[in-house]
Parts: sequence; C-alpha cells; structure tokens
Amino acid sequence: MNYYQEHQPEFLEGLKAFLRIPSISTLSEHKSDIRKAAEFVRSELEKAGLQQAQLIEGQGNPLVYAEWLGAPGRPTLLLYGHYDVQPPDPLDEWKSPPFEPAIRNDNIYARGSADDKGQTFILMKAVEGLLKQHGKLPINVKFLIEGEEEVGGEHIEAYVKSKPARIKADAAVICDTEMFALELPTICVGLRGMVYGELIVQGAGHDLHSGVYGGAAPNPIMAIAEILTALKDRNGHILIPGFYDRVQPPSAKERDAWARLPFNEKEYKEKEVEVKELTGEPEIPLFERLWARPTFEVHGIRGGFTGEGAKTVIPARAVAKISTRLVADQRPDEATKQLKEAVRRVTPKGVTAEVKPIHSAAPSLVNPDNPFVRAAADAMTEVFKKETVYIRSGGSIPIVGCFDQSLGIPSVMLGFGLPDDNLHAPNEKLHLPNFYRGIEAVAHYLETLGR
Amino acid sequence: MNYYQEHQPEFLEGLKAFLRIPSISTLSEHKSDIRKAAEFVRSELEKAGLQQAQLIEGQGNPLVYAEWLGAPGRPTLLLYGHYDVQPPDPLDEWKSPPFEPAIRNDNIYARGSADDKGQTFILMKAVEGLLKQHGKLPINVKFLIEGEEEVGGEHIEAYVKSKPARIKADAAVICDTEMFALELPTICVGLRGMVYGELIVQGAGHDLHSGVYGGAAPNPIMAIAEILTALKDRNGHILIPGFYDRVQPPSAKERDAWARLPFNEKEYKEKEVEVKELTGEPEIPLFERLWARPTFEVHGIRGGFTGEGAKTVIPARAVAKISTRLVADQRPDEATKQLKEAVRRVTPKGVTAEVKPIHSAAPSLVNPDNPFVRAAADAMTEVFKKETVYIRSGGSIPIVGCFDQSLGIPSVMLGFGLPDDNLHAPNEKLHLPNFYRGIEAVAHYLETLGR
Repeated sequence: MNYYQEHQPEFLEGLKAFLRIPSISTLSEHKSDIRKAAEFVRSELEKAGLQQAQLIEGQGNPLVYAEWLGAPGRPTLLLYGHYDVQPPDPLDEWKSPPFEPAIRNDNIYARGSADDKGQTFILMKAVEGLLKQHGKLPINVKFLIEGEEEVGGEHIEAYVKSKPARIKADAAVICDTEMFALELPTICVGLRGMVYGELIVQGAGHDLHSGVYGGAAPNPIMAIAEILTALKDRNGHILIPGFYDRVQPPSAKERDAWARLPFNEKEYKEKEVEVKELTGEPEIPLFERLWARPTFEVHGIRGGFTGEGAKTVIPARAVAKISTRLVADQRPDEATKQLKEAVRRVTPKGVTAEVKPIHSAAPSLVNPDNPFVRAAADAMTEVFKKETVYIRSGGSIPIVGCFDQSLGIPSVMLGFGLPDDNLHAPNEKLHLPNFYRGIEAVAHYLETLGR
Repeated sequence: MNYYQEHQPEFLEGLKAFLRIPSISTLSEHKSDIRKAAEFVRSELEKAGLQQAQLIEGQGNPLVYAEWLGAPGRPTLLLYGHYDVQPPDPLDEWKSPPFEPAIRNDNIYARGSADDKGQTFILMKAVEGLLKQHGKLPINVKFLIEGEEEVGGEHIEAYVKSKPARIKADAAVICDTEMFALELPTICVGLRGMVYGELIVQGAGHDLHSGVYGGAAPNPIMAIAEILTALKDRNGHILIPGFYDRVQPPSAKERDAWARLPFNEKEYKEKEVEVKELTGEPEIPLFERLWARPTFEVHGIRGGFTGEGAKTVIPARAVAKISTRLVADQRPDEATKQLKEAVRRVTPKGVTAEVKPIHSAAPSLVNPDNPFVRAAADAMTEVFKKETVYIRSGGSIPIVGCFDQSLGIPSVMLGFGLPDDNLHAPNEKLHLPNFYRGIEAVAHYLETLGR
C-alpha cells in the first residue's frame, strides 16, 4: 500500500467535513457558510504545508489563495477549483440529505461531491500527500479556489484580468470536468464559449383583440418565430451571415479519436436524452456537433396569454432568451455583432426587435500536444492503467478563456466526475474510486512535470 | 317631443340602476349579483307589459325570457342581449368607480354600459315604449337575455340547440355590436368564426443543459417557431392546405361600400393600433383582411426559462395558444381537421406536436337584402337621418351561428356602441345620444316590420 492508499479513510473524513458546509452561493442566507467553506479550504491548505494561505477579499465571496514556490527553475501550476455549490432543490427527491454525506455503492452522495468540492479536494490532497511524504514538491504550485462559480464567477474574472503578479504561472489545472466513461481517464481540451441574451419584440402599443385587429396588426410572437426560423434552418444550420467564418474544424486525428470513444448512441438517445430522434446538422457526426460546432438555441419564451382556457389577444410584446454557443476561433464580440445585424435584417414588417446581451464567454481550445497536457495524460494513463482519451465539452467554463486571454496560459482540464453524477440535480454523487485515484493521478502528474 | 324624448330621464335612471349591479360572470363571488341582474331584467320586462316574464333555470346562470305574442300573422322577433359583464380590472385606471355610473360629456361611464347592459336596455325600453303608448306591439317579440356571454355562453347555446318551441321566431335581433363611426347608423352583416386551441410540443423527456446537449437535442420552442412559420408566411397567407377553399369573397357591391366608409388609415394605424406598419395580406384591402379573410394567430406562448438573467436550458416542452378566425363558408370542424393535419405535416424531426381544441364558433353572414335587415336599415336611417352602412366584424359572436344553425333564422346585428367605448377595458362608456336614439330606432324598426 502506498501513501495514498493508506490515507484513504482520512481523505474521506476530510471530504465529508467539507461537504457538510452548505456553501450555496446563489442564496444570500448562506453567506456565513460561504465564509466557513473558504476558511476550511484555507486552513486545510495551511495544514498541508502550503505558504501564504489566505483569503483574498474583494467584492463578492473570498478567493482562497496558497502557494508553494520552493522549486526554482521548475514549472509553476495554478490549481483552480471552487468551494461554492448549487442549491439542493428539489429537496424531497434526495435519498439522503444533501449536506449529510452518505455512502452507497462506492459513491459519496452530497451536494458538491462532484461539483466541485470533491474535485477541489483531490487537488488539495495530492499536494498535501507530496509535501507530507517528501517535505517538498517537484514543481511550484499556486492554489486559486473561488466561491462564486455557480453564480457566474464575475469577481474571479475581474481579479484574473487585473493580472496580479501573485498568480503568474505556466499552466492552469482545472479540476471541474468529467471522465467520458467509468474508469476511462479523460482530458478535456476544448470548451464552447457563448453569447447569451434576450430577443425583445414589440408590435402594437398595447394588447389587441384578435377578432377586431387580426389580419392587420403585427403579432410579436409570430415575429419571434419568423426571426428564429430565419436564423437557423430545420437542419440546424445557423443562417447568420459570417457566423461560421472562423470556425476551426477538428483535426482528422481528433475526429478519429472521437469515433473510437466507447459510446452507445441508441442508449444515449433513448435513456439519456429521452427523445425519438437526435437533431442537428445531419452531415456532421454527433460529437463534432456537440463539441466543435456553434449552436443557436432559444432557452425560454414568453408572450401573451398562457393561462387556462382561451383569450383572444394579440399581445403587444414577446421576449425570448436566446444564445449561441461558440467554438474556436469565434469571438464573442464579433458573434454578438453578427447576431444583432442578422436579427435586424430578418425582423418582419410592423414590429421592432432588439437583442439585449446578458453575458458572453470565449471558446477555448488547448493543443493536446502541449507538454502540460501530455504530462497530465501520461500520469492519468499510469494511474488508471488505460490510455487517456481527449475529448471536448459543449459547455462553457469562462475561467478557462480568462486564464488564456489574461494570463496567456493553457488550462489542463483533468476531470474525475462521471456523466451520471447528477450535477445541479438531486442525489449528486462522486464515485469514490475516482476520488482516490484522482488524488494519486494529480500527485503523479506533478511528479511527471518535475522530472 | 315624442314619447321617447319625454322619457329620457326615466330611461337613464333605469339604466343606472341596471349598471349598479356588479354582475361579473367570470367571478364566482358575484353569483348573487348575477341573480340580481337577471331578476332586474325579468321584473323590468314584466313591468313593461310583456308576458311569461321568467328566469329559465338550468346549468349556469339563468336566462331571462319574456314574450308578447298578440300580433298573429305578423313576424316574430327574438331579441337577444346579455346582462353579465366583464371584471373591471385594473380598477385604478377607472376615472369613476365601475359600478357607480357617472356622466361626463354626454357619455355614461360604467362597466357594462356598452357591453351589453346599455344595449340590452335599448331593446327593453323600445318595446316598453310601444306597449305604453299603444297597449300593443306591431309584431310579436320574444326576449332571450343571457348571463354568461363573457364566459363563453355555453349554456344558452345548449338551450338553443335543444330547439325549444318557445323561442321559435322569424329573425333574431342582436344588440351587442357597434356603429362604424359617431352618428353613422350601422348594421353588421358578417362575423368571423373561430377555432381556438393549444399547440403542445414535446422534445426530450426532461429539460437539458444547452451546453452539453446543444447540437443534438431537439428544441420545442424552436419547433413551435418552425410549425408557426410553416403555417403562415410573412405576408399573412395561411399555408394550411385547403384552408381557403370555401372562403367566399365579398361582392363587388360590398367592397365598394367598404371603400366608401369614412376612415382615416393613418389615424387608425398610429392612434388606434399604435404601430409603425399594418400587416397582413398585402394584395387585400384592410376591411376585407379584417372582416372577410381568415386569420391564423398565436395568442400566447410559454416554454423554458423566462425569469431574470440567464439559464442555459433546452426545455422539454413548449405550449402556444393558437387560433384561426373563419369566414363564410368555412366550417369549424373542417378547419380543425385541416389545422391538425397541417401541423402533423410540418412538425420537425425529434419532437411530437399536438393540437388540443378549446372551442370553436361558426362564421356567419347575413344577406343585406334580407327583409329583416333592410327594415332595420331603413328604421336606422330614418332616426339617425343618415344612410345606414353595412359592415362586418372580425370578431365572433357564437350565438349568431347558433341561431342560424339551430333555429334557421338570420340575426340582425343592430349596434349602438362606438369604436372607442373601451369594451373589456377601464372606463367603458356608452354615448348617451346613441342610447336614446337607439331606443327610438328599435321601436321604429318594430313599427316598420309591422306594416
């Protein structure tokens, strides 16, 4: 038994203590729990032997910082995670209380177990293990753990954009993603960005009776339908002029690798998505559609009468929430401009339409041949005894784009979650073998980088 | 001064008493006010000298019935109105309380003043005047006044469909429409029918994360947009196969008459509809679009996230309220079938769509040369000293189709409201000169028919 295997009971107890703190960042009544969780992380890092362990206070919830810089000439990694969690609702669907960690079938169930306390703890315990065993680390590390990831991460972005000397590093490690399948070591090398906003359409100055005015008055719901269908065709092709110009297709090598991933499309369709047919660009394979193609989606819509029964109104106004996911090398600012211009061009007669941006994030793509990525893959392969796969994710992790653009460093996305971990849902879990092997893999990664 | 001019103060006091009863049929707490209003009508008809004045009880609010059948060999008119009213909300926009009638600038302000207590009272006082003056009527009349017009009129329809011998008549008079303009005597000879329902679209089995599934999962809001735009083009042409097959164009005479109506399109557009541009079939004149062409409208839509800010969800389901207005000779059953079949044909991949009918009404069209209509026009012309115009209405009055289909009688739609009477809105009013002249005109109409 190596050090990590010997200390599993202790790691588990530590994780449980972390999970018991209901540090829900979206609910202001948990302000003191947020602080408790930040202090827990700070104190653990200090006890692990890191230096300068402290809370960085500013607007919003504190960042936790700690460093070990005793390996001059060796690389420096910036280790990122977050200590805040999603609310646990709906509470009655949990099989055990969300903040009382329970173990069933090799899984630990609790809010934050996978997203992201469990994974943040992996980074912390890996570094602690190395320090406890050798009194030093093979490379330099800086922890930067935030408490607002579930509410947009606005303040850490502002902090990183200010480029404080303290967080200078050669690469970042993000431990907030998942493995493609059980026991399959996975590195995520690409994320989609996004532009999210509201599409507001105004017709007449007031609601109208559809009998009296139907045939002459513009209908803003119909106008939204006309705008949406003019922006994307039935085959999922986005019709915004210039929108695909910067889209980089995946390499032949990446495509081949995706085609070899263990995947049952029938099961995905019927059990996971629960749908009769998958949709999207028919000429493009599924993973490429999900990971390497932009999207245009409508997330919500409201307008007119939606109660029980019938009301014969032509509403004055309708609003839709829309977004486009972006892929490398699309740019949020340019995409926003293209979207606005396209909406302007396709707005039907009689109504005015406005696109009101809410937020945006840049897409990111890391070269799998980057030495920090390769070393991580090698370390994972060694610990999990299986070839590491490279995937991308269709989602957005804004901090990755932020590290890229503000610090000029790549992010290595090592994830130990699983696709069925129920993130943001009841009965969130973390697979304990992944937790323990994750700690070993991260420690091994640091050793690999130190050679 | 004739009888009607002499009795104006008395008519006004009676109307005020009627308007003071808050007989709101949509609110169950006004059940006793409904009964009070029904009893008020019954008692007034009895005092006027009608026979058999009674409440017809059944399911729902009582019908009020009364008759005078002392003119054998002469025609029999069925006089229709309703004693129930819309709720007065929003209350704070009323300049005087909705159930305390107030007179300002020759208008009486109160909920129900135009729709339809004032107009029902016109019928009642016209008949009363004739009976008081001559002790008899020039023709036979039957009053049928309902108390559920504002909640769908389901029970009167069921009653009429049962064809009770008691309501046999040669024609119906509906006093629930409006004049085209101030001091312009108007008869409405056509109404649109309608088919109203819900369009329910289901995508995946549950809400999905738009980052993880965007590009592969169907989006039911987008699907509704695709269905709506496949059913109507940007020029207002309905694309439902066979939908226009039975549509009867107005006669050249009717078109000419509409073109001569006093009408300022710029004012209508800017002040009444408050819109930059009117829409609809560009090759068809405005009144024909509003009165003689079917429509396809969406009245409301809901789906996904519509709160503040952003949520990146692909919703599982979206629902729209839709309708088509029908014109002669379209048939609600056939139109429903055509709509369902069209939706089935244009439903995109990956979703299921269902049309759930809520209610329907047949269109109606009366021949302006019908002797009951001509006599009404002549009587109006004589009292208002102006040529009566024939118009149609884009709205639906289901009882008209019901009288036509179940009793086989035409409806003469004599209206004394005005376009700015604020029906269903705060500060509903009735123009008092119309009220007084309406009583005279209806009395004159009965005399004309008796000759």
